[in-house]
Amino acid sequence: MNNIVVRSIERAKVSIIQGLGEQGTATVHEAQNRMGLMLPYMRPVFSGVRVSGSAVTALTHPGDNWMLHVIPEIAQEGDIAVVGVSAENSDGMFGDLLATSYKAQGILGLIIDAGCRDSQELTAMKFPVWSRAISAKGTVKKTLGSVNIPVICAGALVNPGDVIVADDDGVVVVPRERAAEVYDAGLQREENESQKRSRLAAGELGLDISNMRSALKNAGLVYVETLNEYD
Amino acid sequence: MNNIVVRSIERAKVSIIQGLGEQGTATVHEAQNRMGLMLPYMRPVFSGVRVSGSAVTALTHPGDNWMLHVIPEIAQEGDIAVVGVSAENSDGMFGDLLATSYKAQGILGLIIDAGCRDSQELTAMKFPVWSRAISAKGTVKKTLGSVNIPVICAGALVNPGDVIVADDDGVVVVPRERAAEVYDAGLQREENESQKRSRLAAGELGLDISNMRSALKNAGLVYVETLNEYD
Amino acid sequence: MNNIVVRSIERAKVSIIQGLGEQGTATVHEAQNRMGLMLPYMRPVFSGVRVSGSAVTALTHPGDNWMLHVIPEIAQEGDIAVVGVSAENSDGMFGDLLATSYKAQGILGLIIDAGCRDSQELTAMKFPVWSRAISAKGTVKKTLGSVNIPVICAGALVNPGDVIVADDDGVVVVPRERAAEVYDAGLQREENESQKRSRLAAGELGLDISNMRSALKNAGLVYVETLNEYD
Amino acid sequence: MNNIVVRSIERAKVSIIQGLGEQGTATVHEAQNRMGLMLPYMRPVFSGVRVSGSAVTALTHPGDNWMLHVIPEIAQEGDIAVVGVSAENSDGMFGDLLATSYKAQGILGLIIDAGCRDSQELTAMKFPVWSRAISAKGTVKKTLGSVNIPVICAGALVNPGDVIVADDDGVVVVPRERAAEVYDAGLQREENESQKRSRLAAGELGLDISNMRSALKNAGLVYVETLNEYD
Amino acid sequence: MNNIVVRSIERAKVSIIQGLGEQGTATVHEAQNRMGLMLPYMRPVFSGVRVSGSAVTALTHPGDNWMLHVIPEIAQEGDIAVVGVSAENSDGMFGDLLATSYKAQGILGLIIDAGCRDSQELTAMKFPVWSRAISAKGTVKKTLGSVNIPVICAGALVNPGDVIVADDDGVVVVPRERAAEVYDAGLQREENESQKRSRLAAGELGLDISNMRSALKNAGLVYVETLNEYD
Amino acid sequence: MNNIVVRSIERAKVSIIQGLGEQGTATVHEAQNRMGLMLPYMRPVFSGVRVSGSAVTALTHPGDNWMLHVIPEIAQEGDIAVVGVSAENSDGMFGDLLATSYKAQGILGLIIDAGCRDSQELTAMKFPVWSRAISAKGTVKKTLGSVNIPVICAGALVNPGDVIVADDDGVVVVPRERAAEVYDAGLQREENESQKRSRLAAGELGLDISNMRSALKNAGLVYVETLNEYD
Repeated sequence: MNNIVVRSIERAKVSIIQGLGEQGTATVHEAQNRMGLMLPYMRPVFSGVRVSGSAVTALTHPGDNWMLHVIPEIAQEGDIAVVGVSAENSDGMFGDLLATSYKAQGILGLIIDAGCRDSQELTAMKFPVWSRAISAKGTVKKTLGSVNIPVICAGALVNPGDVIVADDDGVVVVPRERAAEVYDAGLQREENESQKRSRLAAGELGLDISNMRSALKNAGLVYVETLNEYD
Repeated sequence: MNNIVVRSIERAKVSIIQGLGEQGTATVHEAQNRMGLMLPYMRPVFSGVRVSGSAVTALTHPGDNWMLHVIPEIAQEGDIAVVGVSAENSDGMFGDLLATSYKAQGILGLIIDAGCRDSQELTAMKFPVWSRAISAKGTVKKTLGSVNIPVICAGALVNPGDVIVADDDGVVVVPRERAAEVYDAGLQREENESQKRSRLAAGELGLDISNMRSALKNAGLVYVETLNEYD
Repeated sequence: MNNIVVRSIERAKVSIIQGLGEQGTATVHEAQNRMGLMLPYMRPVFSGVRVSGSAVTALTHPGDNWMLHVIPEIAQEGDIAVVGVSAENSDGMFGDLLATSYKAQGILGLIIDAGCRDSQELTAMKFPVWSRAISAKGTVKKTLGSVNIPVICAGALVNPGDVIVADDDGVVVVPRERAAEVYDAGLQREENESQKRSRLAAGELGLDISNMRSALKNAGLVYVETLNEYD
Repeated sequence: MNNIVVRSIERAKVSIIQGLGEQGTATVHEAQNRMGLMLPYMRPVFSGVRVSGSAVTALTHPGDNWMLHVIPEIAQEGDIAVVGVSAENSDGMFGDLLATSYKAQGILGLIIDAGCRDSQELTAMKFPVWSRAISAKGTVKKTLGSVNIPVICAGALVNPGDVIVADDDGVVVVPRERAAEVYDAGLQREENESQKRSRLAAGELGLDISNMRSALKNAGLVYVETLNEYD
Repeated sequence: MNNIVVRSIERAKVSIIQGLGEQGTATVHEAQNRMGLMLPYMRPVFSGVRVSGSAVTALTHPGDNWMLHVIPEIAQEGDIAVVGVSAENSDGMFGDLLATSYKAQGILGLIIDAGCRDSQELTAMKFPVWSRAISAKGTVKKTLGSVNIPVICAGALVNPGDVIVADDDGVVVVPRERAAEVYDAGLQREENESQKRSRLAAGELGLDISNMRSALKNAGLVYVETLNEYD
Repeated sequence: MNNIVVRSIERAKVSIIQGLGEQGTATVHEAQNRMGLMLPYMRPVFSGVRVSGSAVTALTHPGDNWMLHVIPEIAQEGDIAVVGVSAENSDGMFGDLLATSYKAQGILGLIIDAGCRDSQELTAMKFPVWSRAISAKGTVKKTLGSVNIPVICAGALVNPGDVIVADDDGVVVVPRERAAEVYDAGLQREENESQKRSRLAAGELGLDISNMRSALKNAGLVYVETLNEYD
């Protein structure tokens, strides 16, 4: 595949994107059958944020951030930039200048399978970034990649327009066509969990609420009074 | 060993457990001759906490958190759950629902050699967790393990009822029968350190306070004015 | 090389050291042609700090912090201690007692290619430390190393008297003789960036500000409307 | 996506698959513009082999190899099994019994983003496996996955029917539809390299053969006689 | 616990130890319910060996191999030395001189949660070592540890006299008292596998031999002809 | 420092270089007081080789092997190429074409803090390479570095003309000016070890040969008959 920039991508409905963001990564990940999670080495530069948006993607090469300068030309308000790299790399590909530009264009955050820098400035600007490293090391602009093609980022496949949900637990990718369905499954899960939470807080045991006792027994779990008794 | 749950374990005296918690991991670890520390990949989900309690243990398998649902049935107020896994795994085995239940049963915290999730909710609830990863990835309930048997967690052996001390420096295990003795050694250490701290703050050198100069000289350390002079 | 302590080292001008500190690691690293950065596994114990100072160095061995007790005898106000270790090690070689002493002698921070402990106390004292690990594990005082010789720390060569700049993005070493020149290059870079920042914030694209469009075209980048169109 | 097994997939032409295998991973990877390489943690159980075949894929969960038992029912002679896992896992999911079955069905090898075991037996049988770990730890058969859906394996997207090329340098995925084109590009590359090889062996410099001198000079490379002269 | 050397330990029966060695780590690990495996970072210095013996243990500190010199005084013919370290360390604690001594005393091999060196000589001598690293870096003899106390080695608890089985798939620990029972379970497993192996080699599918089809169907696995048909 | 190529470097005496090569890395490393070893992630592509030579160095950037093409122009017969990279990188920077050229110019081997490829061909050619990774991923020729300047490679400082000794235990750097002195220390060490080896092989204990018993006793080591006796 040559080096291309795809201008026009489809996105999910705004209300669905926002709804998935409110559910958070743990719920969304369960709601799509525990698929689509990036590897846990992806960590937020600052904690306490939860964002969702449409993926605008870039494929780059180690030590080269040229394509990150093309993203703001192509992205729309509400997008999240997702950057894959063709080899493991921790260079600081993104800093406060790019963040200023991304913010000005309405981009909500960055997911990058490499490093970022100016982390104190990003924190002050409240521009959220999930990366595999923080590193002052800058990059060159010499080798092309592509924008808005399917990319692998931290072990997950991201198609342009997929919904990205990110918080302190990591980053989940929801395929655009499945976003509504996953959102509905998440709602159901939340309702179910909300009831359980009250009962657990009141001191009931999950073993009873979820009727696990017979399954545990059938699987062979044995209760003994002391370890010695068992031997 | 088959899959068992041991209901009844012995615990150390409450006053000793609390005293060890006040000393913190660095002091306690020294006080027991630098033994019993979990590997430093165990990190707190949120910082600034120091807890101590009696270990209630579980052995689990990668991607399966079934045994974590048995713990609250068995644990007492003041316990800390300690979870070993039979292979390296970063799945989010523990989240805010389990934390609600653990809290309701008086469990003070969780030490898990795997991942946890709902980290923003855990932080808001102030339920402390030390884990090797944070990951939105959930788990199944299909394979039994055991509860309250000896487990290896992050490179340390934990017997049920051992005293766990955890803070931002990591997690230390104190064998139950040695808890009082370790606590006493820690007190002595604290007293000794307190005196040193004042003298160091006043500008005295540790070389003088601890009489290191002759030992350094005997070992062969040579002072030179400049590097050139030495060559 | 035997085990020596070098008493007297040359340092850069105070105004230059402070100026480099204000520029921060990302700017300084670019200003010296992207050289001299320690590996990104070096992380601050607490975030939000930016320091600069003259390197006082020590070479140590795994599990032995004896030489760290010699540093305060040799260091001057405004120095930063830089500790290399002869093999990979995560032991907590430095804690609040040493920090009390270092602070009393005017040492501004510590860069250590090993672990540190008492991280809650260090945070409360606001004594900044960059390390590869946080670990309660203490160390012995049995094997000599050297003080104020050239050391490798986290992949970077540090000569005594070199300028150290450290913040949340990592740790950069500036050779003493090049400090003024790097500082000047950093100033120019800051000025250039400041202008760009305003234009980016106002919505201009970096592609236009930096005239990248023709270079991208010459390199072969192709814009297409949709991915299908391209196939 | 629910748990499915897709029986029927398209494959590339046998002659192309064999041709790519003869070229090897380094050539094939270059021939498709340095895309499609799995991460370098994928290593062969025994060295000296080079295989190519059509990917039959499976998505599995950590510690569960159930889907690996479905693969031989679905695979054809000349296929290579490619197994992705939904989280990082090093369990020994594959051993000599499965290898016996795979071999009997004509499967040429296994690429697995987890561990394998019975490595001495696999070596004796000459059944090639590329994995991220070797581990005696076995797995259960309790959680479904899918067979012949697109999977991510060691950072690369693999669609069923894609061509897999594997040797001591790693594992490359060639999309089925591009296989012929990549093969042709590889042939050209080989021819070009063959000429270069003879000239290099005869003592000519690559700088001259590939006319790099002017490019290096234009980029600013300066030759000096000694380092001192440069200072 | 102070620094002690325990002279006298109990061992399993020689015939059981040899039998476990013939079964190999994968079978033994299954036979004891997938427990007791060291972490997979433990690798043999040279491949193709399978040994079993009684554990003689040592606890050491990073960079210090003093206790390894005590082992040959205490070990008997047929023992395997197992060395735990109090912190992660890759130093080359063991080389050809110690191997010469160990061999002279009848020690069959070494399992060390650190590094070893002289790997070419160890290979030539055929003295098998499993370690986490190979490193030329030597160590000092300054800090005591203990010999023949329980140790944690690569995530596994080893009591003196436990049976160690090691081959290219890793290292398994069998508690001494359970050795006979595990051996019997392994024999049964081998017989079962041997029958399966023939049928698999003849082209039968594991799905049929092990009657997995109904379980897969009950769990919800769906066969489709093509992926499109499923959507 | 700009991008330069230094043509002329000093080298150690050939007889010393060869002598160090015969001693091997473990002996040489001890002989220079356990300094100058590269990190143990540096592994040989094929085992069983021991080489020594004069370092010709290159500093490169991730994903760019341009400078590796300059090395054969500058190197002499008997040199070893040593390549540092400005950030962690596993790309296959070196393959059989470059190896053909290096061999034609008399270069004896390559030490590279990145990846290499064509590992099967390198093995067949018997051109030894020590690298941190093996990867089919190729690189570009777009960003300059330097040749024959001091570089950091795998945690060790290498000055052009330093003596490199490499074998299965790793890679050691001996500063050129110290080469003769280190060689002499190594000879002494070998003689001492040779005597010890015979006595150890004859069944004497190292405790006796090296008179360790009193030192162990003074340090506090206690022999007990059984663990119970001690409690």
